[in-house]
Amino acid sequence: MFKFTIEKKDSFTNARLGRFVTPHGEVETPAFMAVGTVATVKAMTPRDLQEAGCRIILGNTYHLYLRPGVEVIEKLGGLHRFMGWNGPILTDSGGFQVFSLGALRKITEEGVEFQSHLDGSSHKLTPEKVVDIQERLGSDIAMVLDECIPHPAERDYVRPSTLRTIRWAERSLRARQKSDMAIFGIVQGGMYEDLRLECARELTALPFDGFAAGGLGVGEEEAALRAIGRYTAGLLPEDRPRYLMGIGRPEDLVAAVAAGYDLFDCVLPTRNARNGSLFTSAGKMNIRRAEYASDPRPADEACDCYGCRNFSRAYLRHLHLSGEILAAQLMTLHNLAFYQRRMARLRAAIREDKLQEIQIKAEDPESSIQKPE
Amino acid sequence: MFKFTIEKKDSFTNARLGRFVTPHGEVETPAFMAVGTVATVKAMTPRDLQEAGCRIILGNTYHLYLRPGVEVIEKLGGLHRFMGWNGPILTDSGGFQVFSLGALRKITEEGVEFQSHLDGSSHKLTPEKVVDIQERLGSDIAMVLDECIPHPAERDYVRPSTLRTIRWAERSLRARQKSDMAIFGIVQGGMYEDLRLECARELTALPFDGFAAGGLGVGEEEAALRAIGRYTAGLLPEDRPRYLMGIGRPEDLVAAVAAGYDLFDCVLPTRNARNGSLFTSAGKMNIRRAEYASDPRPADEACDCYGCRNFSRAYLRHLHLSGEILAAQLMTLHNLAFYQRRMARLRAAIREDKLQEIQIKAEDPESSIQKPE
Repeated sequence: MFKFTIEKKDSFTNARLGRFVTPHGEVETPAFMAVGTVATVKAMTPRDLQEAGCRIILGNTYHLYLRPGVEVIEKLGGLHRFMGWNGPILTDSGGFQVFSLGALRKITEEGVEFQSHLDGSSHKLTPEKVVDIQERLGSDIAMVLDECIPHPAERDYVRPSTLRTIRWAERSLRARQKSDMAIFGIVQGGMYEDLRLECARELTALPFDGFAAGGLGVGEEEAALRAIGRYTAGLLPEDRPRYLMGIGRPEDLVAAVAAGYDLFDCVLPTRNARNGSLFTSAGKMNIRRAEYASDPRPADEACDCYGCRNFSRAYLRHLHLSGEILAAQLMTLHNLAFYQRRMARLRAAIREDKLQEIQIKAEDPESSIQKPE
Repeated sequence: MFKFTIEKKDSFTNARLGRFVTPHGEVETPAFMAVGTVATVKAMTPRDLQEAGCRIILGNTYHLYLRPGVEVIEKLGGLHRFMGWNGPILTDSGGFQVFSLGALRKITEEGVEFQSHLDGSSHKLTPEKVVDIQERLGSDIAMVLDECIPHPAERDYVRPSTLRTIRWAERSLRARQKSDMAIFGIVQGGMYEDLRLECARELTALPFDGFAAGGLGVGEEEAALRAIGRYTAGLLPEDRPRYLMGIGRPEDLVAAVAAGYDLFDCVLPTRNARNGSLFTSAGKMNIRRAEYASDPRPADEACDCYGCRNFSRAYLRHLHLSGEILAAQLMTLHNLAFYQRRMARLRAAIREDKLQEIQIKAEDPESSIQKPE
């Protein structure tokens, strides 16, 4: 059974240090999940993920439903066994992906009809079906089907959408068969505080195991992301984990942890790595830059990942410019290790009541969130 | 200093069990080298290579000369340090690549002028320059610049080309500055036995550390490859390693070892892996086939590589069809492990005078070279 405990609250911010227990082990929070959309975190073996410090990863219901299909994964013993990952897995519902399809989908009260981005075939997902799929995948934490509202959106669109997301959430809970799979509700409401409040009030009355803030990081201004993110966190119960979906940059994570969030996911560390962009203790590094052509230093002199222990910036640049797969392997491993180390430092800071110091440095325009590393 | 010793000769074939010593360690022969063209064996970290059983790898002078350039690698401490590989490295001269350029190159007595396949820039490589580059890369075993003669080729083309390759070989030896870098001569001569003989007689009179058979596997018939390969092996001195360049398939390796070759390289295990083709103890396997869609078995039930220990055919197929980098990682690791295990079995067979049994099975049309595994 899913269980969340708070070990310590920060004295100066809303941050919490905690842990949750799943059928596949414990996770210390605040935690960052690497994104493993189609049953692989791109360019990473499961042992690479362990080495980078990943303890929980994210899979995607929509993608796995389309390919290889739920039946295949079920027959192979579930998602964990299929992908060789024995730690906890949270599966996103597919709401975000389906709603990214634009003209290819149609939303009704019953659910969402859409055409596959792979072959154009027609499909329908309902809240019940999405829960069923996640149970069959063997997810540790399932997300309800929601509508991830695009930005900008008129209030006249946002309110009915949000109310439907609430009704879908109720249906999702009723559909659950497996008590050992946690289900998180997702608070929508666009950039409207009163709609966020309305949504949170309804959802938090339901026995969800945790709550997420969705529909953020969808193109809104930085200030709106911060404000709505912080506001929504304050609407969620203390005793259950709070998950800020799809966020974010290292500096976003500090702010979000201070706001009281416990769980995060983002494609940035993995996608940036494949594009030659590294997170380092001295700031972001574009490995393509000519200045690194014969630079013998590791990407990050403060990092002890396999890549930084063994290879130079010059070598990484050479691999990246040559289009070599090894570039993606080494740089993804580094970026994930950087993110996990960052999370470990935030946890340590909460324990020592020092998160505010990190936060102040992160918000100082003269400084950089990267600097305090 | 390079040193080659033969530990045992097979009683029924021309196979030999031996070892050579380089500045970066010993290699048991017969040995297969994974191809690491641009300072990376594609999709493999150095620790992956170690795990697969690779003890010596091949780099490519032509590619490294063009990108990242010799100066960069030299400044970074040489090729071994640059790519994080501490074992022996043999560098191909670039002859094969330059001669693949077709209209983009011009051969003179002095050397070869060519245009870069990357940016069209003009370059000239001479035998002396190619030795110099390999010394600066820090290669353990350098190959002389030669002309890899295309097939088919008229005798009127092959003889003058081969004589020039001989003159280039002499110049290469004279150009050597570093006594700890071994240099191998390359026997050309096309499909003409008398020209192979002439070339081998001239080259083996020179103090090369080893000899290669080049210009094979260039499109000739299977029978010609076998016959010329075997004939050329017989022209090379017993006391120095014999390297059959660019070969080959598992069944080719058995025949070549029986003919007396000690060293091999080929892109097959790595390239095939990226194309979804696996070498297994039950034969070749195309992982894209529908029959593997929900097959829970490892790719090769007789294999103990990381991929086969942890993942199903269904998962590999899913990764490959999804275009995931991890497909290339896991399948390359498997194919290299398969090749290295194959070489270890051939070495064990020589030790026990059983190579002929393997060879007979390999040549039996009712059997498959894969079967005896």
